Amino acid sequence: MPDASLLDKFPAPTDQPFVVEHVSDEFTSVCPVTGHPDFGSVTVRFEPKPANAGGTCVELKSLKLYLQSFRNEGIYYEAVTNQIRDDLVALMQPTWLQVITHWKGRGGISSVIRATSGTVPCEFLTMTK
Amino acid sequence: MPDASLLDKFPAPTDQPFVVEHVSDEFTSVCPVTGHPDFGSVTVRFEPKPANAGGTCVELKSLKLYLQSFRNEGIYYEAVTNQIRDDLVALMQPTWLQVITHWKGRGGISSVIRATSGTVPCEFLTMTK
Amino acid sequence: MPDASLLDKFPAPTDQPFVVEHVSDEFTSVCPVTGHPDFGSVTVRFEPKPANAGGTCVELKSLKLYLQSFRNEGIYYEAVTNQIRDDLVALMQPTWLQVITHWKGRGGISSVIRATSGTVPCEFLTMTK
Amino acid sequence: MPDASLLDKFPAPTDQPFVVEHVSDEFTSVCPVTGHPDFGSVTVRFEPKPANAGGTCVELKSLKLYLQSFRNEGIYYEAVTNQIRDDLVALMQPTWLQVITHWKGRGGISSVIRATSGTVPCEFLTMTK
Amino acid sequence: MPDASLLDKFPAPTDQPFVVEHVSDEFTSVCPVTGHPDFGSVTVRFEPKPANAGGTCVELKSLKLYLQSFRNEGIYYEAVTNQIRDDLVALMQPTWLQVITHWKGRGGISSVIRATSGTVPCEFLTMTK
Amino acid sequence: MPDASLLDKFPAPTDQPFVVEHVSDEFTSVCPVTGHPDFGSVTVRFEPKPANAGGTCVELKSLKLYLQSFRNEGIYYEAVTNQIRDDLVALMQPTWLQVITHWKGRGGISSVIRATSGTVPCEFLTMTK
Amino acid sequence: MPDASLLDKFPAPTDQPFVVEHVSDEFTSVCPVTGHPDFGSVTVRFEPKPANAGGTCVELKSLKLYLQSFRNEGIYYEAVTNQIRDDLVALMQPTWLQVITHWKGRGGISSVIRATSGTVPCEFLTMTK
Amino acid sequence: MPDASLLDKFPAPTDQPFVVEHVSDEFTSVCPVTGHPDFGSVTVRFEPKPANAGGTCVELKSLKLYLQSFRNEGIYYEAVTNQIRDDLVALMQPTWLQVITHWKGRGGISSVIRATSGTVPCEFLTMTK
Amino acid sequence: MPDASLLDKFPAPTDQPFVVEHVSDEFTSVCPVTGHPDFGSVTVRFEPKPANAGGTCVELKSLKLYLQSFRNEGIYYEAVTNQIRDDLVALMQPTWLQVITHWKGRGGISSVIRATSGTVPCEFLTMTK
Amino acid sequence: MPDASLLDKFPAPTDQPFVVEHVSDEFTSVCPVTGHPDFGSVTVRFEPKPANAGGTCVELKSLKLYLQSFRNEGIYYEAVTNQIRDDLVALMQPTWLQVITHWKGRGGISSVIRATSGTVPCEFLTMTK
Repeated sequence: MPDASLLDKFPAPTDQPFVVEHVSDEFTSVCPVTGHPDFGSVTVRFEPKPANAGGTCVELKSLKLYLQSFRNEGIYYEAVTNQIRDDLVALMQPTWLQVITHWKGRGGISSVIRATSGTVPCEFLTMTK
Repeated sequence: MPDASLLDKFPAPTDQPFVVEHVSDEFTSVCPVTGHPDFGSVTVRFEPKPANAGGTCVELKSLKLYLQSFRNEGIYYEAVTNQIRDDLVALMQPTWLQVITHWKGRGGISSVIRATSGTVPCEFLTMTK
Repeated sequence: MPDASLLDKFPAPTDQPFVVEHVSDEFTSVCPVTGHPDFGSVTVRFEPKPANAGGTCVELKSLKLYLQSFRNEGIYYEAVTNQIRDDLVALMQPTWLQVITHWKGRGGISSVIRATSGTVPCEFLTMTK
Repeated sequence: MPDASLLDKFPAPTDQPFVVEHVSDEFTSVCPVTGHPDFGSVTVRFEPKPANAGGTCVELKSLKLYLQSFRNEGIYYEAVTNQIRDDLVALMQPTWLQVITHWKGRGGISSVIRATSGTVPCEFLTMTK
Repeated sequence: MPDASLLDKFPAPTDQPFVVEHVSDEFTSVCPVTGHPDFGSVTVRFEPKPANAGGTCVELKSLKLYLQSFRNEGIYYEAVTNQIRDDLVALMQPTWLQVITHWKGRGGISSVIRATSGTVPCEFLTMTK
Repeated sequence: MPDASLLDKFPAPTDQPFVVEHVSDEFTSVCPVTGHPDFGSVTVRFEPKPANAGGTCVELKSLKLYLQSFRNEGIYYEAVTNQIRDDLVALMQPTWLQVITHWKGRGGISSVIRATSGTVPCEFLTMTK
Repeated sequence: MPDASLLDKFPAPTDQPFVVEHVSDEFTSVCPVTGHPDFGSVTVRFEPKPANAGGTCVELKSLKLYLQSFRNEGIYYEAVTNQIRDDLVALMQPTWLQVITHWKGRGGISSVIRATSGTVPCEFLTMTK
Repeated sequence: MPDASLLDKFPAPTDQPFVVEHVSDEFTSVCPVTGHPDFGSVTVRFEPKPANAGGTCVELKSLKLYLQSFRNEGIYYEAVTNQIRDDLVALMQPTWLQVITHWKGRGGISSVIRATSGTVPCEFLTMTK
Repeated sequence: MPDASLLDKFPAPTDQPFVVEHVSDEFTSVCPVTGHPDFGSVTVRFEPKPANAGGTCVELKSLKLYLQSFRNEGIYYEAVTNQIRDDLVALMQPTWLQVITHWKGRGGISSVIRATSGTVPCEFLTMTK
Repeated sequence: MPDASLLDKFPAPTDQPFVVEHVSDEFTSVCPVTGHPDFGSVTVRFEPKPANAGGTCVELKSLKLYLQSFRNEGIYYEAVTNQIRDDLVALMQPTWLQVITHWKGRGGISSVIRATSGTVPCEFLTMTK
């Protein structure tokens, strides 16, 4: 079951601006309607707050374990995407954050869900992944 | 026969902004003039209203069955595209919605139809699919 | 001989905005100077007027027969392109229309002709085909 | 020797706007310094004046013969490009015209020369050929 | 251990504007959590101050040795990126500087970190590496 | 040793605007620190002044010999790039000029140096070579 | 329902050897287990008997109508492939014949079925389609 | 837990030779050492015995469910591949059968396991998937 | 109407072995069943007899005119291919000859016809065009 | 006019076997029928005799001048190819030699001519250029 308590963070190492991007190509959860597994990728992109404003970054291994906690959860694509956005925003209160999920075809239909928090700079809005 | 009653929806899981994209590469209907089958892809992209404004998302399996209901319908490309746009707008009243259909060659001519509702952000207007 | 009377149309299925694109990769006519055959592709892209303003769409099979009627006509690239633009504008009075023709090499020279009517949105002006 | 009298033209077939593009991948002339042959491509792109303003288009076979007349001429890349621009502007007085020549490596150096007349729309300025 | 004292510089050779870009595809450090090696690339891009304002450039061999000094350091991606940015800014006080690190997949997750100092011109903001 | 006296020029053939681009993929010099050979490419792009303002173009064979004169010179990438810019600006006083050098990997690091004089039009600023 | 009586043939035009290949990328039938539509491509490749031995070729439009007759049939991939092989062998008694069907993913699984009659020359056995 | 009883079969539809290939790009199991999920693809390729010799084919939906039954099993790549081979051979006794599994990188290492039963024709032995 | 009398030849220039290949990407004829135009490419490949055995080669311009003579002929793909093979064999009596025609999709089906005379060396049998 | 006396050679530097390949992408001659220029590439590949058997290699600059001597010659593709083969065989008496010429499209037809002397090893027979 998705478990935000798995998420860990560490203080942003600087007051200067920087942007973090993590892409997992090995995400899987379960369709709540059919019970069949869903496979996809998850992109998380964010700008932490400056260190002197209490900025933090999600720790990578904890992010991996958190994403793995969806493995046997029956959950919609849209809910996965928004929950990841919400859990990471709650964890870090970043300046902005973007989550993009790509889902392999199911019944001949592939899907992409994009969720944001704050104002994403335009050079990232047009990235396909 | 195209059957909008097959479409099902669920409440948007959040008040935060997000964008949904579904692409079916396995669409088929019938040409109303020649009776021959048409083959193509259908892209549906939309931003639901926020949950607190009654926003909803189309359920994926119901979308699959709805798209399959065109299988033996004699209908123009343009009518397919606009009907999908209209049926989904009626279902969800989304903030904006975009439908793009690509049709394989018939008589040596391939076609693309793009239909919109509301104001589609420019980063999506330039996507080819 | 090019025959605009072959063109047929049907009422636009909606008052909502949509854009139609037809690409034929099997166009041939005859060079009026050398008598040798020319080969190329024809892209037609347009936004019909809304249905409640009398908007119409060219019917696809009639477009195929119309394009085939150029087969043995001795005619310049530029005239082909402008005649298709003019015949389709006369047929449909669309909000805007764009015709792009690509011609295979003749004497080592390949050519592209672009003709427009009305104001083509910029996301279509930069398409190469 | 380059011979502008080989160029022929015909009246623009319409008052509506259109753009013509001819690309020859088989251009050759001679280096005036070393006497060695140069090989390259020539792109000519222009918008003719409207027919009712006396607009004309260069005839394609005459353009081929004109480009072939450079074959044994000792002439710089820059002069080739500007002479083509000048000869075509003198022939047609187009609304705008663009000539781009690409030259294969000589002494390990490849070259591109771009010459314009009038105001070239920005969607053509960024084309690489 | 990362050692900024390895970095050497030389005076900018001119008062005119220029931009320097160094890309190392052979960067390795150690994950501070798992102890496993990380592999990635590091892009450093900057505009030095003019020579008459005391501008300097990082010397390439010293940059190589500096990047190699991270080899056995247990350090986060984010800290690597910001430390390189900070060490180079301290070394050169450039007009602007951009550091982009790409990290190969670990636990199925690949990452990109982007850090900047000063105002990076937009033609560089959209570069993927 | 780099020898600007090798550079030759000829008068711009026209008062009309045009842009010249020369790319050498066979540039080599020597690293001043390690004594090892460096290999790379050099792009020179400029708009000459109009002929009636005394505009000139660098002669291609002289450019080749000039670039070859760096062969055994121990010199930094940054100095190569700026010296080429300065020598060509001194030779031609062009309206604007851009020099981009790409350097193959040395110690696993590849580099790009961009130097300009005057105002380079934006369609050239974003070219990668 | 699949209808072999739709297939038509014409006499092989020669006693000399030749090989015919037809590829349809627009095949659809229905899964006999789930009732959902299947989509795929069908390749038919054969060498007719010589004309003087009564050789024949399948007529293309009749082949199209025959393939379309599977549209609403509930039938396994393996049965589709073997039935096409059997119906075409019964129609033409060719020297050899090869049928390859490719099926788009269903439940994340894509499939290829290859069926033969007679001895297929090795240069065709290794073709992927 | 892997469950061969989920596998279902149906009689081969013909006595003629044919080859079946199923590729799942959505396979996941669990590493028995680290407990982390593994992701990969599974290719199953076989020639059934002729119908008159009792030949059978694995039913596709049952194959999907069987592959999904590995989802939470801690099992080596090699064991996965051989078990699938063994379970399918036990189910069908095919003339020959080939299983190829591709595994995404873990700790920077990607893997491919190939297992066979009977004599696989050489045109399939050289396929990469 | 196809006219073999348009074909011209010239004596093979040598007794040594050589192979000639001509590819036309601009072939068109008419479907004898539907009356619609067909488009495709024609590859002709042959080894002439040695000059001292009366070997000849087809003249290229005559081949072009011959291929153009099919333009308005209602004729099957198979008949086109075999007639070209027969007419060229009658013209030249080559050591061997191969004709490959590729036809664009009609009714969603694309086709390839391969016809040979004599023994084609294996390095040419596996060429796709 | 083609001039074999331009060809120069030097002794093979060894008794050991080696293979030489020269490719010119800048070949031009003139069509003897139409008088129009032809453009193409020329590949020359050979194994010299051992040095102790009097083996020689063609000198590269002399080969360039020799190929340029065809520039204004009216000559068939086949004759160009065989003459180059014959002139080089006469010059060097190599163990084997292969000449492949590729010709850009003329009248929509592109051509390839392959001529050999001696026994070309099979790994070179299948090269497309």
